[in-house]
Amino acid sequence: MSDFTPAPASADLGVFGLGVMGANLARNLARHGHSVAVFNRTLARTERLMERYGSEGDFVPASDLKDFVASLRTPRVAIIMVQAGAATEAVIEELSALMEPGDIIVDAGNTLYTDTRRREEALRERGLHFVGMGVSGGEEGALLGPSIMPGGTAESYNRLGPMLESISAHVDGEPCCTHVGPDGAGHFVKLVHNGIEYADMQLIAEAYSLLRYVAGLSVPEIAEVFRSWKDSELDSYLIDITTEVLSRTDPVTGRPFVDVVVDAAGQKGTGVWTTQTALELGVAVPAIAEATFARAVSSAAAARAAVRAADLAPGTSESTLSGQDREAFIDAVKQALYGSKIAAYAQGFDEIATASAQFGWNIDLGAMARIWRGGCIIRARFLDDITRAYNSTGSADNASNADNEDAHLASLLTAPVFASALVQALPAWRQVVAISALTGVPAPAFASSLAYVDQLRADRLPAALIQGQRDFFGSHTYHRVDDPEGIYHTLWAAPERTEEKWN
Amino acid sequence: MSDFTPAPASADLGVFGLGVMGANLARNLARHGHSVAVFNRTLARTERLMERYGSEGDFVPASDLKDFVASLRTPRVAIIMVQAGAATEAVIEELSALMEPGDIIVDAGNTLYTDTRRREEALRERGLHFVGMGVSGGEEGALLGPSIMPGGTAESYNRLGPMLESISAHVDGEPCCTHVGPDGAGHFVKLVHNGIEYADMQLIAEAYSLLRYVAGLSVPEIAEVFRSWKDSELDSYLIDITTEVLSRTDPVTGRPFVDVVVDAAGQKGTGVWTTQTALELGVAVPAIAEATFARAVSSAAAARAAVRAADLAPGTSESTLSGQDREAFIDAVKQALYGSKIAAYAQGFDEIATASAQFGWNIDLGAMARIWRGGCIIRARFLDDITRAYNSTGSADNASNADNEDAHLASLLTAPVFASALVQALPAWRQVVAISALTGVPAPAFASSLAYVDQLRADRLPAALIQGQRDFFGSHTYHRVDDPEGIYHTLWAAPERTEEKWN
Repeated sequence: MSDFTPAPASADLGVFGLGVMGANLARNLARHGHSVAVFNRTLARTERLMERYGSEGDFVPASDLKDFVASLRTPRVAIIMVQAGAATEAVIEELSALMEPGDIIVDAGNTLYTDTRRREEALRERGLHFVGMGVSGGEEGALLGPSIMPGGTAESYNRLGPMLESISAHVDGEPCCTHVGPDGAGHFVKLVHNGIEYADMQLIAEAYSLLRYVAGLSVPEIAEVFRSWKDSELDSYLIDITTEVLSRTDPVTGRPFVDVVVDAAGQKGTGVWTTQTALELGVAVPAIAEATFARAVSSAAAARAAVRAADLAPGTSESTLSGQDREAFIDAVKQALYGSKIAAYAQGFDEIATASAQFGWNIDLGAMARIWRGGCIIRARFLDDITRAYNSTGSADNASNADNEDAHLASLLTAPVFASALVQALPAWRQVVAISALTGVPAPAFASSLAYVDQLRADRLPAALIQGQRDFFGSHTYHRVDDPEGIYHTLWAAPERTEEKWN
Repeated sequence: MSDFTPAPASADLGVFGLGVMGANLARNLARHGHSVAVFNRTLARTERLMERYGSEGDFVPASDLKDFVASLRTPRVAIIMVQAGAATEAVIEELSALMEPGDIIVDAGNTLYTDTRRREEALRERGLHFVGMGVSGGEEGALLGPSIMPGGTAESYNRLGPMLESISAHVDGEPCCTHVGPDGAGHFVKLVHNGIEYADMQLIAEAYSLLRYVAGLSVPEIAEVFRSWKDSELDSYLIDITTEVLSRTDPVTGRPFVDVVVDAAGQKGTGVWTTQTALELGVAVPAIAEATFARAVSSAAAARAAVRAADLAPGTSESTLSGQDREAFIDAVKQALYGSKIAAYAQGFDEIATASAQFGWNIDLGAMARIWRGGCIIRARFLDDITRAYNSTGSADNASNADNEDAHLASLLTAPVFASALVQALPAWRQVVAISALTGVPAPAFASSLAYVDQLRADRLPAALIQGQRDFFGSHTYHRVDDPEGIYHTLWAAPERTEEKWN
């Protein structure tokens, strides 16, 4: 067994936790010329890292936690990459006990932002910087260039940022890393990133389903359709890998790979968290919710079997289209996908803007789109447009400030580039949602995203009726259009039904 | 100031908290021959209750909390009706300190079931029974007969149940009160009741909106349509009050009342909680989620104003229908409303069934529908069918047991009465959702409910593609249809893309 005893203050920063993600992050840092202290509770992992990759750069291994901390030059930077929850909590406790005011602890795991806010506050009282940092791109991204979303103080970013920016993905020469904002802002933005990813994947899955079961395209034909969309505003990593998945033939059966995979989607909880958080904040994210629910329905084996056996009325037709109709339908699905994608991203950015205003994070929404352009799952050409849309306006906190309507985007839908895209997409999108309903080939996220846009478009919503119902059964009151500040109640039980002004 | 010093052990039970809800509950109990100890921190409320309603029955007022507790015959029953959260927590602490093993504390507020579970466990260790009790029906229901959903031990129900059943609403001679199940079961069921209420209200609002903006009916005409639906399976309290609200003319302007109400729906959080809880449990409740989000969108004034100003493409037509077309469309909307309602209730009951199985509550789903037939907001003829559907099968815990498929309903959709209703409703429902998409008159809950049914109906869902994407970017693995237990991963990065079996 090795005994690694590093020289004091010899490392630029340290990584605690050398699972695949932690090891890859450490290697990425070492490859970029940073001297990286490495520590793992099970020494074997440290040994393996040194054996296999020790020659890639300047690693500073430590067998002992105290030595690990001592090996960091001050102000110290220790990045924790262990399981979220109790494991992370324990490591923070141990590390912080050994560190000094001004030192920086970074949690690079998928921690819920509320936990990050709590921990940041506790460590701040002890003079330490605590940085909740979103890292997107999986194992490969961690090694080759992730998208990095660090929160915490601006002061900590001065020390940390240059190292992170050196190892992040780069697009057009710009790093996919920036200081997101104080305390939990980084983990929050990573959370919403994942929620958007759920929606984007579901939308692509619905497009596939419609092309297959309405238009009657074969799987290889659908793969070619997705490949062709690479030359459009839909160009993205998810479209690329969809093309790859649909192009694969199962070597065992000779059937399309997608047909031999059980159609029950798994999930690790970030879609759930994003939706729950949006509900908490009062932000509508129906596309993300429908995507999350669609995975749940797909995995509800008993209910699916029972409903199939009940033999409910199918849709009106599930026929094969040909020639012109087919080309027109393919293009309509493309428009529906693009329109829905704009709506889904608008929902995600609205969630970030709302949290930013609520927590005083002052998040630069355009910068969020910019650092998602590389390294992460939702990287896409489309994000350039989002960056430009927000850069011509203000920060997130202004965006939620209704007094300042000229200087910001109240919704991504209203950025000129997306408003005109929607004007173009909407007629075809409406057709696709109608066809989905009529044929019974479900497209819950397409339909929900369209309804989201149409609700925002509406001059009047039936919410007025709901206010009437609520006043009737629960005296919940209402405002009048001719006195929007006044609070009114109708005495529904009294025969004359007088209206009272309560305030 | 009064000095109420009651005789010891003179009251059948007590009510702590004499706001309108608490006072009405106490009056209801007294009117039904129970001697009711009453206590309020601010004595003036106790005095007012005694002055105004003291003659209605046998009230036992107390000025002092110790006297209040001493006035209860053992085992003591104290019902708390104060604000959920810190206020409730404080009262439980004070009361429990004065009570003895075997006594019963009842929280009749709208407490989140997780809090109830925590408190029940803590009080159980001290030998006390803690009952989380849902009470539906608002202030009027509390006085005249609510729907009551008590959790806690069966032993506590033996003492408490007969009194509660005497004051609850009754339908066909049966009380709208039953023992729901252990610990937090009562508050959980009340929560889902409220979530279903959100969905039901939203569905009615969408029906109104389509009749108005697609079919071109006037508000009074729509009121008549709703009135006519009373003679159908849609007959319900919510349809009744919708008719009332739509029939009202604003005396100030002479316009329909619904047109002078600001179209921004308020909410008090139970739709949020129901959806968050469903997400936690992995249950799909898209109709409840869409209803909750629709309220949020309606209140997003800045985004609505900005999107309206952006002048996106409207729907294809928003014309007035006449004659036969109009009658056919009205009937189609009715079918869509009924089908969507079945789907929404199926989602709510699925949430209860899943929680029941997870927490070992053994909830009788048929009994839940039975006790909602009176006293509460969602009371409806329709609930008789739900009761019958579940009574011919098993309990909730069996319902989630896939090994026992013959003896239960895996989904309410598959009960014969609802399956045949859906077969009848689906063609028109599909048309209505299609028309909503084409005209741009949004119906998010109609569309989402249809997609929910169609997802459950589908032979294959595009979740298989999502599994492929997840395996590609995150090595999340998949199952094969020819080996549903095996865990597979494709080496997507390797040129030959070998498939590996991992388990």
